[in-house]
Amino acid sequence: MDLKYMKLALRYATEAYKKNEVPVGAVIVKDGNVISYAFNKKECNQSVLEHAELIAIRKAEKKLNNWRLNGCDIYVTLDPCPMCAGAIKQARISNVFSALQNSDVLNTDLLNKIFSTDKTNPEVNFYTNICPFESKKLLSLFFKMKR
Amino acid sequence: MDLKYMKLALRYATEAYKKNEVPVGAVIVKDGNVISYAFNKKECNQSVLEHAELIAIRKAEKKLNNWRLNGCDIYVTLDPCPMCAGAIKQARISNVFSALQNSDVLNTDLLNKIFSTDKTNPEVNFYTNICPFESKKLLSLFFKMKR
Repeated sequence: MDLKYMKLALRYATEAYKKNEVPVGAVIVKDGNVISYAFNKKECNQSVLEHAELIAIRKAEKKLNNWRLNGCDIYVTLDPCPMCAGAIKQARISNVFSALQNSDVLNTDLLNKIFSTDKTNPEVNFYTNICPFESKKLLSLFFKMKR
Repeated sequence: MDLKYMKLALRYATEAYKKNEVPVGAVIVKDGNVISYAFNKKECNQSVLEHAELIAIRKAEKKLNNWRLNGCDIYVTLDPCPMCAGAIKQARISNVFSALQNSDVLNTDLLNKIFSTDKTNPEVNFYTNICPFESKKLLSLFFKMKR
């Protein structure tokens, strides 16, 4: 784990904020190289599939020309949702580093289940609440502005 | 629920089979109209995001120019995985009709949790094992060929 990648993910989360999107960013790293990065574009592109994590996975798959992202880690500024967690698992990403834990305990429970070993995919190591303050501040600002 | 849409989904699953993909098809219906359809293209397009359900959701969002697929139902030839279930939930699809239940009980448990009400999305009604035989036959043929 290297905090410089989380800082990069937070920079992309700020880009989402500027575009009036829920501020979440993601960076995929392999062997010390940034393979892909993204920020949430759900409203802009009118698609639930435009979460930062899914865009980053799509870009990484394209770059490596392979759906198997073995040996890759993903840095996210907020715990993934079940959809993104399922994609991370199936893409065989090794480690998930999340800046901020989701306040919904049901989400945490689901993530632990999704990330554990199943019939076809290995376990994903999940580390959360690594550096919550900046991400929390950004999300609070966003939701304050919206309400 | 109208079995004619499931028959259509099974036809797309057969298309996947012909292309050497795990044979799964999906059809999205709104007010008696087929909004979108798809079959699994994971290997062909080298992306875990190319499950039939996600492709169908992407096409439906584009057609309606809205990530909210309110009032839409999805017909699938096999229970969705957690990734696709999460996408279905967030897209606010009302009903999921699945031809065949996944043999992995952990998947069923996860689906029931994902489809129940959460902080931001309403419950998704999930009906499974509606007409298992044709889908099961197609999947058995596929995996027999692979082993």
